[in-house]
Amino acid sequence: MTVKTSSNRKLKQVTDYVGADTMTAQVDNTRDPDPYPTRLAKPLDTLWVARREGVVRGRAEQGPLGPAQLDEFERKGFLFEPDFINGEELDELCRELSELLSRDDFRGRDFSITEPDSQEIRSLFAVHYLSERFAALACDERLVGRVRQILGGDAYVHQSRINYKPGFEGKGFSWHSDFETWHAEDGMPAMHAVSASIVLTDNHEFNGPLMLIPGSHKVFVPCLGETPENHHRQSLKRQEFGVPGREALRELVARHGIEAPKGAAGGLLLFDCNTLHGSNANMSPDPRSNVFFVYNRRDNACVEPFAAHRRRPSFLAHKPDEAWTPQG
Amino acid sequence: MTVKTSSNRKLKQVTDYVGADTMTAQVDNTRDPDPYPTRLAKPLDTLWVARREGVVRGRAEQGPLGPAQLDEFERKGFLFEPDFINGEELDELCRELSELLSRDDFRGRDFSITEPDSQEIRSLFAVHYLSERFAALACDERLVGRVRQILGGDAYVHQSRINYKPGFEGKGFSWHSDFETWHAEDGMPAMHAVSASIVLTDNHEFNGPLMLIPGSHKVFVPCLGETPENHHRQSLKRQEFGVPGREALRELVARHGIEAPKGAAGGLLLFDCNTLHGSNANMSPDPRSNVFFVYNRRDNACVEPFAAHRRRPSFLAHKPDEAWTPQG
Repeated sequence: MTVKTSSNRKLKQVTDYVGADTMTAQVDNTRDPDPYPTRLAKPLDTLWVARREGVVRGRAEQGPLGPAQLDEFERKGFLFEPDFINGEELDELCRELSELLSRDDFRGRDFSITEPDSQEIRSLFAVHYLSERFAALACDERLVGRVRQILGGDAYVHQSRINYKPGFEGKGFSWHSDFETWHAEDGMPAMHAVSASIVLTDNHEFNGPLMLIPGSHKVFVPCLGETPENHHRQSLKRQEFGVPGREALRELVARHGIEAPKGAAGGLLLFDCNTLHGSNANMSPDPRSNVFFVYNRRDNACVEPFAAHRRRPSFLAHKPDEAWTPQG
Repeated sequence: MTVKTSSNRKLKQVTDYVGADTMTAQVDNTRDPDPYPTRLAKPLDTLWVARREGVVRGRAEQGPLGPAQLDEFERKGFLFEPDFINGEELDELCRELSELLSRDDFRGRDFSITEPDSQEIRSLFAVHYLSERFAALACDERLVGRVRQILGGDAYVHQSRINYKPGFEGKGFSWHSDFETWHAEDGMPAMHAVSASIVLTDNHEFNGPLMLIPGSHKVFVPCLGETPENHHRQSLKRQEFGVPGREALRELVARHGIEAPKGAAGGLLLFDCNTLHGSNANMSPDPRSNVFFVYNRRDNACVEPFAAHRRRPSFLAHKPDEAWTPQG
């Protein structure tokens, strides 16, 4: 395996580092060495390791995305399509979002995340199980066709959610790769997943739009986790885990810059599972809402977590053809 | 006094509300009623009160700013002039900033604010006393002439500072009016002050540039403070005070929008003491540095605080012709 660094100095093979002493969580030692080691107790002496999987695995003839769009996705790790949904269809999705977020019977459930200081639902997971309308959208050929072109095979929904970030309230989140979390905590083996986010409100520079580092999807940045005395208690403090180091971020931004696709409600953002992204706080009165589906290729279904003691709850990580229903 | 609200409903005179029971801090009851009541225990039934002072009090013939620039300042409450300083002069100011921030003898002093997790200085106050170079800049006719045009009289430096916000580190700050704090905590009587900020690094959408609400300088938004059991302990938690209500912010942004002047190092931002501003976190590797002078008109020198028990330390609020030197 080629190990890339900014200085191109000669480095050990990354697999040399994957011993039990560098992992914060128990891993199955009968497995092959993990090509994407993360949640390490000590830093590797490389900023990142190269991605092994291809990015675009389908062809332009197979579906809605043209060659230039597929090239852009391949190069940047994301593609923004303004005006993907509009008119009555957009209004209908917004109404459905509002209705779901106001459902009293969803309050206090594990799959609904409420505001810190109120009982208002801020995020709702598993929406393609909770709503026929969002279920239909998740398997809409306009989305599934694009996903098939990118992943080169059939996919299922690994995770779905709707977000409603109220004005002045929505906090930002730090740079991260979703794949890093899904690999470490959900057991997603390889980079055969793509996210589709449809913005249901206008997105502008002041309401905390998603920022991405184009090209960052081609490397995997192992993250440091402490080696905690009491891992179970520590692991609840999620923000301490899965955060790439600043040196890696600095180097990737220096090479590729940052982009923040903005525009009117109804735009579709497709982004690779490993593209580094983050966002700033919402400084405006305008809410920022979206619906979000993660498509994982069927032959890449999750196994045991690669760097966590146990899997996360199923509302965060569905299995293929799972018959999920709310628990409790 | 005219009291403006979004609904234009008939309201009591704002001075009716300024009784001892609505103030969280002791005020001198022999004073006239405060036209800018703030840090209130209970909200007024008005979102804001009208500004009493003019904005631009000088004329175009008096100085460097032309009529269009003065009109823009009058209308928006700020004026951005790209390329105000450049070349060797800019390099020299950047070097001076670096030297001051690396001074060992400034560490641990009250006027130097260090990083939470290190001994690196992040902000340094009173720089026009600490540095001959910044003292010269503070009284440079290019700045003082502009200030005189805006304020319509001679001014002194009420506060000065340099900021160095490292990449990925700099946190944002919430919407606020500086005048609200200077009035409440430093005893600045009226809106006869203007801030001059010269950016010493490039300012872009990802390193947390200053955001302003144009037009917000024409109203004063009274802020709520809790009525704390133990005011002295509470008052140290500064972020709880001087934060305008969301309804007022929503209404002002709906009317006027938000602007974030961006551009290369060397730009000058002049902004009225009462213009609402804030910023987001620095999501980029690029630091964001600036030097900042607050000019207050000499006939507006501070008196006792209007909504605080005692004045803040002198490094935050100088008197005219003060001979400030570092203490301790």
